[in-house]
Amino acid sequence: MRIGPSRLGTCEVRSPLRDRSIATDFVSDNQSVRLSVSGESENDDTLFERAGARDAIFFDPSKSRAGIVTCGGLSPGLNHVVRSLVLALVHSYGCTGVIGYRYGYEGLTKKGVTARPLAPDDVRDIHRFGGSFLGASRGKQSPEEMVDTLLRDDVSMLFAIGGDGTARGAHAIATEAARRGLTLSVIGIPKTIDNDVAFVDRTFGFETAVSLASDVLSAAHAEARSARNGVSVVQLMGRDAGFITAAATLASAEVNVCLIPEVPFSPPSLLAYVEYRLAARGHALIAIAEGCGAYLSGEDGDLRGKDRSAGMTLKKMIDAHFEGLGAPVNVKYIDPSYIIRSVTANASDAILCDQLARHAVHAAMTGRTNLMVGRIHGEFVHVPLSMATSSVRRVEPHGELWRSVLQATGQPSFT
Amino acid sequence: MRIGPSRLGTCEVRSPLRDRSIATDFVSDNQSVRLSVSGESENDDTLFERAGARDAIFFDPSKSRAGIVTCGGLSPGLNHVVRSLVLALVHSYGCTGVIGYRYGYEGLTKKGVTARPLAPDDVRDIHRFGGSFLGASRGKQSPEEMVDTLLRDDVSMLFAIGGDGTARGAHAIATEAARRGLTLSVIGIPKTIDNDVAFVDRTFGFETAVSLASDVLSAAHAEARSARNGVSVVQLMGRDAGFITAAATLASAEVNVCLIPEVPFSPPSLLAYVEYRLAARGHALIAIAEGCGAYLSGEDGDLRGKDRSAGMTLKKMIDAHFEGLGAPVNVKYIDPSYIIRSVTANASDAILCDQLARHAVHAAMTGRTNLMVGRIHGEFVHVPLSMATSSVRRVEPHGELWRSVLQATGQPSFT
Amino acid sequence: MRIGPSRLGTCEVRSPLRDRSIATDFVSDNQSVRLSVSGESENDDTLFERAGARDAIFFDPSKSRAGIVTCGGLSPGLNHVVRSLVLALVHSYGCTGVIGYRYGYEGLTKKGVTARPLAPDDVRDIHRFGGSFLGASRGKQSPEEMVDTLLRDDVSMLFAIGGDGTARGAHAIATEAARRGLTLSVIGIPKTIDNDVAFVDRTFGFETAVSLASDVLSAAHAEARSARNGVSVVQLMGRDAGFITAAATLASAEVNVCLIPEVPFSPPSLLAYVEYRLAARGHALIAIAEGCGAYLSGEDGDLRGKDRSAGMTLKKMIDAHFEGLGAPVNVKYIDPSYIIRSVTANASDAILCDQLARHAVHAAMTGRTNLMVGRIHGEFVHVPLSMATSSVRRVEPHGELWRSVLQATGQPSFT
Amino acid sequence: MRIGPSRLGTCEVRSPLRDRSIATDFVSDNQSVRLSVSGESENDDTLFERAGARDAIFFDPSKSRAGIVTCGGLSPGLNHVVRSLVLALVHSYGCTGVIGYRYGYEGLTKKGVTARPLAPDDVRDIHRFGGSFLGASRGKQSPEEMVDTLLRDDVSMLFAIGGDGTARGAHAIATEAARRGLTLSVIGIPKTIDNDVAFVDRTFGFETAVSLASDVLSAAHAEARSARNGVSVVQLMGRDAGFITAAATLASAEVNVCLIPEVPFSPPSLLAYVEYRLAARGHALIAIAEGCGAYLSGEDGDLRGKDRSAGMTLKKMIDAHFEGLGAPVNVKYIDPSYIIRSVTANASDAILCDQLARHAVHAAMTGRTNLMVGRIHGEFVHVPLSMATSSVRRVEPHGELWRSVLQATGQPSFT
Repeated sequence: MRIGPSRLGTCEVRSPLRDRSIATDFVSDNQSVRLSVSGESENDDTLFERAGARDAIFFDPSKSRAGIVTCGGLSPGLNHVVRSLVLALVHSYGCTGVIGYRYGYEGLTKKGVTARPLAPDDVRDIHRFGGSFLGASRGKQSPEEMVDTLLRDDVSMLFAIGGDGTARGAHAIATEAARRGLTLSVIGIPKTIDNDVAFVDRTFGFETAVSLASDVLSAAHAEARSARNGVSVVQLMGRDAGFITAAATLASAEVNVCLIPEVPFSPPSLLAYVEYRLAARGHALIAIAEGCGAYLSGEDGDLRGKDRSAGMTLKKMIDAHFEGLGAPVNVKYIDPSYIIRSVTANASDAILCDQLARHAVHAAMTGRTNLMVGRIHGEFVHVPLSMATSSVRRVEPHGELWRSVLQATGQPSFT
Repeated sequence: MRIGPSRLGTCEVRSPLRDRSIATDFVSDNQSVRLSVSGESENDDTLFERAGARDAIFFDPSKSRAGIVTCGGLSPGLNHVVRSLVLALVHSYGCTGVIGYRYGYEGLTKKGVTARPLAPDDVRDIHRFGGSFLGASRGKQSPEEMVDTLLRDDVSMLFAIGGDGTARGAHAIATEAARRGLTLSVIGIPKTIDNDVAFVDRTFGFETAVSLASDVLSAAHAEARSARNGVSVVQLMGRDAGFITAAATLASAEVNVCLIPEVPFSPPSLLAYVEYRLAARGHALIAIAEGCGAYLSGEDGDLRGKDRSAGMTLKKMIDAHFEGLGAPVNVKYIDPSYIIRSVTANASDAILCDQLARHAVHAAMTGRTNLMVGRIHGEFVHVPLSMATSSVRRVEPHGELWRSVLQATGQPSFT
Repeated sequence: MRIGPSRLGTCEVRSPLRDRSIATDFVSDNQSVRLSVSGESENDDTLFERAGARDAIFFDPSKSRAGIVTCGGLSPGLNHVVRSLVLALVHSYGCTGVIGYRYGYEGLTKKGVTARPLAPDDVRDIHRFGGSFLGASRGKQSPEEMVDTLLRDDVSMLFAIGGDGTARGAHAIATEAARRGLTLSVIGIPKTIDNDVAFVDRTFGFETAVSLASDVLSAAHAEARSARNGVSVVQLMGRDAGFITAAATLASAEVNVCLIPEVPFSPPSLLAYVEYRLAARGHALIAIAEGCGAYLSGEDGDLRGKDRSAGMTLKKMIDAHFEGLGAPVNVKYIDPSYIIRSVTANASDAILCDQLARHAVHAAMTGRTNLMVGRIHGEFVHVPLSMATSSVRRVEPHGELWRSVLQATGQPSFT
Repeated sequence: MRIGPSRLGTCEVRSPLRDRSIATDFVSDNQSVRLSVSGESENDDTLFERAGARDAIFFDPSKSRAGIVTCGGLSPGLNHVVRSLVLALVHSYGCTGVIGYRYGYEGLTKKGVTARPLAPDDVRDIHRFGGSFLGASRGKQSPEEMVDTLLRDDVSMLFAIGGDGTARGAHAIATEAARRGLTLSVIGIPKTIDNDVAFVDRTFGFETAVSLASDVLSAAHAEARSARNGVSVVQLMGRDAGFITAAATLASAEVNVCLIPEVPFSPPSLLAYVEYRLAARGHALIAIAEGCGAYLSGEDGDLRGKDRSAGMTLKKMIDAHFEGLGAPVNVKYIDPSYIIRSVTANASDAILCDQLARHAVHAAMTGRTNLMVGRIHGEFVHVPLSMATSSVRRVEPHGELWRSVLQATGQPSFT
């Protein structure tokens, strides 16, 4: 099955890239990438359209304006993406104007802060800073109102950087524009520090987050080892997916227990293991994803779903358990999330951000719309937004990543 | 007034350092360092005995054994100190044995974990790791029991690395040993990440902590700037003294409000300023020392003294204030203390640890006892433990550090 | 075409992993991974055997000993690989002994330093240190002598971590062992900081190197910008392949000219561009891979092949050119290679090292031999050593990486 | 003896700081700081005037303009100083204009690049970048021409950030201005990464340099340890003074031989020790300051004074020595200076830069001139430029720093 994105029309404009040495090999529209690399996969495997520069484009750059918006929580690399979008639009294609909307989709509504023009000089150094230069926010806005704003600003390409909700918003904007018969290209750029987007094998910010989380685990290990019966509980990001927690566990090589939302555990079994570990080694380091709260609630049903407090709940549970045994232990609770998500991207994420941005621009210039830039097996592809929002990515409990974690920690099954 | 430490006897052993090239210039016992560098100070200024290697020592290294203990909370550099103590005792002086007591003073009691011998090879690489290699703990133990342990282990020099309580414990041990007529030298090495020890112008770990705290403030700044009406509240270490908070504020150059225990503030005045700041700039970064709780409690008297929650209390107060105004803001609370205190020492602290340890060994070898290694104006001195524990160091509200902070933040007086 | 590695015999031993929860899903021998992910690839695409734990193994762990050797230049992560090999062999499979050979293949000969046993406690912390714990060396040794040593030491699995020459050596050892009819499994683990091994989409140490190189480029950019007509020439690793130089260029986002061995350039054209750049902006940052020497030699034929001096040659050429113009410029030459290659692995490389090591152990335990652990599209596979050493990996001048570099630098073609 | 700087006139303007809460305690003109802290120092010790804000100033801020110039080589923190100068002049005092001269003193001449105005918004983020925002250059310029430029630009306060030559230039400008009867205040801010300025106990950039140099030494140690008979020679900054080399040696705790310009050594003695060390331990790490060339030249007189090549000369000498012995060794030469000097300042240096800048502004506003901001025993003072340029600071071969180095390395005397 071959998946193709929506298109606004045929490409009849000569790409300005043809007159430069920088893109001698254009991608043709019939190139695709297999969803599965397994040698056993059927011939009717899902195929995604390959992303990349085409030799003919849809929009006349000299008459086209673009808008950029960043939504949702922070992830290292947001400013890299904005910077590369502006540079690619202006320097590679010669677009006449780029607008940055402020504080997420709110900036596309009447109650939003006024948008700002974005020239190359405005974004030259923004990648050296964490956070979002444009500001971000969460929350749904009216597609009608947002399309009105885009019309008013004469924007024909919108780049929406964000997670699941952002993709849904982008889909609503594209749909509303199509309903009105507008030539608006809406391109999503996936952003989630948790790395849990389907058809994207690595989201920007994830590797930076794992790297910092791994440093925090090292510090937490030093804390635990320095106290008699010291236990460090480190809560890491991941409401639904345990990628950060699992990867940081592997990277640090010091974690004794790793807990993720995809793998259920029973608190009594976990506490028994902590007991065993303290008796044997005198200290323990536990990494827990924030989305593990449900497993900790037990009969105390009102904890269910209070994801953000999983680590603190576990800390209190351990404290109570050992006090009950008459053998108090020294539990430290550490939540580094706000420190991790607002740093600048590391080298690996910086490169990824640049590539995502440039592929988004290529896609928009050809009049493709209602799609997200995806990445499978390291290759960039076009994923329809409807498809992107109807699927998720999770740690596979029987897969290689989790098996590596089990080997690295030596932890048993807590069931 | 010249301050001299207690001594166990006269120094009649030729220092082994005399036979090496490494200490051609020995310090003589009558050298001293002025407490004040002010040109206006009187001639009867307080003078401390200068620390350093002497050409004659008290203990015969070939027959002397030393013990090391680390107490209290973690501070970057603990392992550096332990490492340099062992290397100086064994390599510089030729001591025959060094013992490491486990988990603080508890390790000197019957209920403690067995002590471990420390040879140079055991400590070669420990400075690459955070925390305390020996383990640490808080709490008072019986001086009688601890002296019994030292006698049993044939230890004639005890190095106690720790803060205020540790110095008091060391004083009690020295006093008990003197009462029994034992030749035991007890040397304190000041350790407080907060930098609040009198007669010590810089404690090890402090600069490392400031450096990390400054990075956290940068991340928190990015958080605040990326949200509309974003406020980041960062709680930093300092129960009684605001040195870390003030210095990190200066280093980061992004803080808008800095709050320390030495400078009272009124919550309404502070909240009014946050209002003003958000109206003017749209975001605010607040650094608060953990010891500021009392100023936040107001009529809600039960908060008084709950120091550790100052930052969280402030966050809630800001949330409530703006909700009351019908203009909710986006407040993030960040407490990085467990991440900061368990890292390894930076270069500057590494050097300081090495020097503190070597001066402690020099002092012990000459039979001095009941003293702490101090540092005034960058010079190392001997400070009697009784004196060290009866005074404290605080940020001077009219002094240069706080004035620099006020200039850097531009904050008004919140009174 | 399906590529399968050599095998010593059938697997009739029950894997100890079956009795643990840690590997519920074993890989079956007929699973494979496609070499191409292109949707247009033919059905007779090359397929590699998938790596991973099998439910039956060849060697009886309780009677099997393993040897480890690290060869060639340093790459961040060497100690991670050694550590994970030991932990997987001993903890996951229960092998009875592991031996570490010293200083590369030399350690397998009579003139080598004596090998050392490797227990889990010996390797617990080695991943915190750069370099190779076992030592490394370059150079070919006699396969007969090396097989004699392995026989003497009763080693039935040899893990050889290294580059091209190492793989050839491993192939020679496996061939010699087969000639003698010995049951010796020889497994190669690819190591090249340059990332230029065929059938390995990312080698360990590469991302760490790119990250550090990117920092060095930022510093060099500050140097160039701070001088009037300042030029910084940074030489990066890559004798034959420009992956590090290209990726660091993308990550830093400050480079004006990027030069790699795969893309020829003419010095006059390059110098003309530097002139233009200085006139327009007053400073320039050039990243050059060490293997670009041939393009710089021109009529001065004796420079050809002196790869290591490419950057210095370019610096002198720029100096001479502008002196000739009567407009001397300020050129700084920077070669950070010895600083980069001897650091510890970053989080991303740490994970990769762990996975490579565990797959190598799984492969050896099943009696596979004469293979290298490969990785295509992020999936681990078995690559016969003969195939691995007969192919190379290079930056594709018409591919996406180089196109991204051209867009990021804005540099023209220097032909 | 009390040292007082030149003054342009009496202070009759009320300081704007009096109307703010930020400087309740002004410094009075008769406060001073002792040059010696030794308890044995005579009563006629040298006293320096204490720096700091006064309650009355000389210049009317509303009519006064300031100029800033950065000269010489780079040092981490240059941009911090420029930033704090601008913020203090504009925000603290209300000056009406600040001008930044480009590329050192050259920018004050007719052939220089045009100066640029500096408003707070221009410098807001410059401290996040290494190098000098204004550009720097070396070399002497005509004092007459520079004073002409300052007159033309209506500048009444000049801040010159630089080393020895810069201070001499500043002195020449102040002298020329005095000759013409101009009311120009010239204030020097000492900048040398080498930390070798008299009456300044720590220069900005030094601690950052030591920290990075220490990391490089760790990497070089890993290099040396990973090769059989591996030797790493790391050349560090310091043409005349060994402070960076000595301090980095202490911080890294891995160096086996430390060589600085202040302590002569004989190459044969040094080579004999390297031989001994390789025989005993198999690897060696040597840190050498760039200014040690003279000791290496021996009869080969033409090496004398070629300071920058000391490390490379030593590498070649070691290579030749062991080849002569028929026992070739593996020597790596590493020179990280261009990587170190162009990074941003660490937290400790950032604070120092801020304080130096603010004291410079206080001094200028009171009409003091022809002085440098000094720092003795951690206290800021005014040092006449004539005095600052007639004295130097060196590592004391019999002092504590060098003694610590000898203890840490265990190296003998190489005489």
